[in-house]
Amino acid sequence: METLRVALAERSYPIHIGSGLLDAAELLAPHVRGRQAAVLTSQVIAPHYLARAKATLERAGARPIEVVVQDGEAAKDWPTLQSVFDAFLAARLGRDGIVVALGGGVVGDLAGFAAAVYQRGVPYIQVPTTLLAQVDSSVGGKTAINHPRGKNMIGAFHQPLAVVADVALLGTLPERELRAGLAEVIKHGAALDLAFFEWLEQSMEKLLARDEAALVHAVRRCCELKAAVVSADEREAGARALLNLGHTFGHAIEAGAGYGAWLHGEAVAAGMVMAAELSAREGLLAPREVERVRRLIARAQLPVAGPKLPPERLVELMAVDKKNVRGETRFVLLERLGHAVVKAGVPAERVREAIVAAR
Amino acid sequence: METLRVALAERSYPIHIGSGLLDAAELLAPHVRGRQAAVLTSQVIAPHYLARAKATLERAGARPIEVVVQDGEAAKDWPTLQSVFDAFLAARLGRDGIVVALGGGVVGDLAGFAAAVYQRGVPYIQVPTTLLAQVDSSVGGKTAINHPRGKNMIGAFHQPLAVVADVALLGTLPERELRAGLAEVIKHGAALDLAFFEWLEQSMEKLLARDEAALVHAVRRCCELKAAVVSADEREAGARALLNLGHTFGHAIEAGAGYGAWLHGEAVAAGMVMAAELSAREGLLAPREVERVRRLIARAQLPVAGPKLPPERLVELMAVDKKNVRGETRFVLLERLGHAVVKAGVPAERVREAIVAAR
Repeated sequence: METLRVALAERSYPIHIGSGLLDAAELLAPHVRGRQAAVLTSQVIAPHYLARAKATLERAGARPIEVVVQDGEAAKDWPTLQSVFDAFLAARLGRDGIVVALGGGVVGDLAGFAAAVYQRGVPYIQVPTTLLAQVDSSVGGKTAINHPRGKNMIGAFHQPLAVVADVALLGTLPERELRAGLAEVIKHGAALDLAFFEWLEQSMEKLLARDEAALVHAVRRCCELKAAVVSADEREAGARALLNLGHTFGHAIEAGAGYGAWLHGEAVAAGMVMAAELSAREGLLAPREVERVRRLIARAQLPVAGPKLPPERLVELMAVDKKNVRGETRFVLLERLGHAVVKAGVPAERVREAIVAAR
Repeated sequence: METLRVALAERSYPIHIGSGLLDAAELLAPHVRGRQAAVLTSQVIAPHYLARAKATLERAGARPIEVVVQDGEAAKDWPTLQSVFDAFLAARLGRDGIVVALGGGVVGDLAGFAAAVYQRGVPYIQVPTTLLAQVDSSVGGKTAINHPRGKNMIGAFHQPLAVVADVALLGTLPERELRAGLAEVIKHGAALDLAFFEWLEQSMEKLLARDEAALVHAVRRCCELKAAVVSADEREAGARALLNLGHTFGHAIEAGAGYGAWLHGEAVAAGMVMAAELSAREGLLAPREVERVRRLIARAQLPVAGPKLPPERLVELMAVDKKNVRGETRFVLLERLGHAVVKAGVPAERVREAIVAAR
């Protein structure tokens, strides 16, 4: 097992990465002993891992209850959140209780937001079960649900007490979701670390084959990179925005295609190709490096083009993105591979061109 | 004008108290200049003060938009919150926008919570228009909406950038709401400051007559007391709980009578009498002092007994109060006038007796 730390003063927390950690009661005990622990998970994850998670919590001295929500992005909505609160209240979960998010990015976002606002905030632990959640969404404290007008529009920054990433859980992950997680892995390399990007160019087949050592390395490096950025910029005022490479395009793709049609990672993958194309058009990234981004994404069997929508529609959807400052869309672009920058004032015509070029 | 400060490190903020401050653009300008400012107010407040507030914001350099919600406690619900988000999104309020809560406790709680979670948090300013909001709810950063199973069950701690308390706005306050505000004023004296309690015994008629100097003194002293407690204990782990005198009973009264039937301050008033009676039964408060509490509340023309419900029903409702720790209801009791304490392990039979004794 490897343990990293997200340094955030009194809200610092550990990330444990390894194989078989779902059974490690000693990792949970310091946080849950003597408490009621509400395990929030999805219908797809529950049959595989819920009983084990509850058994581990019991050995750690907690009184577990369970809340099972529907699978997929559609669960990040008001009615599902309401049903989570109903379940918490029916079980009389108090302010001294704790929430355990057992699932992928959707469960983590929903459980984290529920914990952030239930009785004005209770603590929570992330036990991510997808590659996407292990490398990205479970770390950093961003929680949210969707609004019909935009993804993650309602949410909170709420840091977990701990993240327990068990790569053995990725064994049951559907192929498509594994690939979607690889999009966020590629993002960390492309935006922040050329050496890691190069390691990915060499290791993509191992990752697709779920080689455990390769997965531990990828999860660990992504968490290291993300933890450093989050420690420096918890609330996304500056450096943290770099982790949104591909996301401005990606959110528009998700919204345009209808939530749930594209997986988040798939949208980010195509969004990264668009961001790379836009970077080249803004005179930043060399065309040869745009091709490296496109090729690595294609090797991960991820989409390199957006949905069949008029490019204007995506541009329009980007205009309501919450990262806009004073009405202007800001883009995370690549100055070179491994080095992202934030840029405002990009002409809409170039954005349109980049969308068309990504195919 | 008097200015106090709530000391909370990087989240410190000023409270301005005086007459005519609604027109003081210079108080708002540092926070709103160049921003879109969403003024959230109620149907009752809007005709009196919305145009003036927007004019002041414009002079302060902001671009105001307005969101008007229904009046009363019923507005602290999911559908109203949803409609607030719809309005923010329709106006394309960005993360660089700001929310202005122009109203009483309901508007402040709703606007504060909306600001806390809209796009994972935007700043807000409190412009309280009721006595209750000026002396209590606008200070301290507690925001929330209600759940059918309990008041303020869903919320956040989100500190405002500033509080602007204009006592001239109390001129249009209905008599009943003025009295409800006096309940929270009395609470500050009874729980924290004997000298202030005695000043209230001497000044109750002036306050009921809306004497401006008396109002400024009362608002100022309550804010001073509350600011000190909030600075020491932002998230209600310890001392801040003392400000909940009368609230455990009060919340049960509000829920039992049906939200909106009793004003919050009315419920707290009767709740304080119950808490005083319980304090006497627990061997803390002298019977003579219980009478002083009851008499001052009666002189403020506030209820000294709960609704016509079986006492058992109130006891039951208290069992789901979010201040419960490990399933046990904790009570804020009076050790003596001006000195509250928190006590657990109170026998249910004594609680029942205290409810019956308050009449």
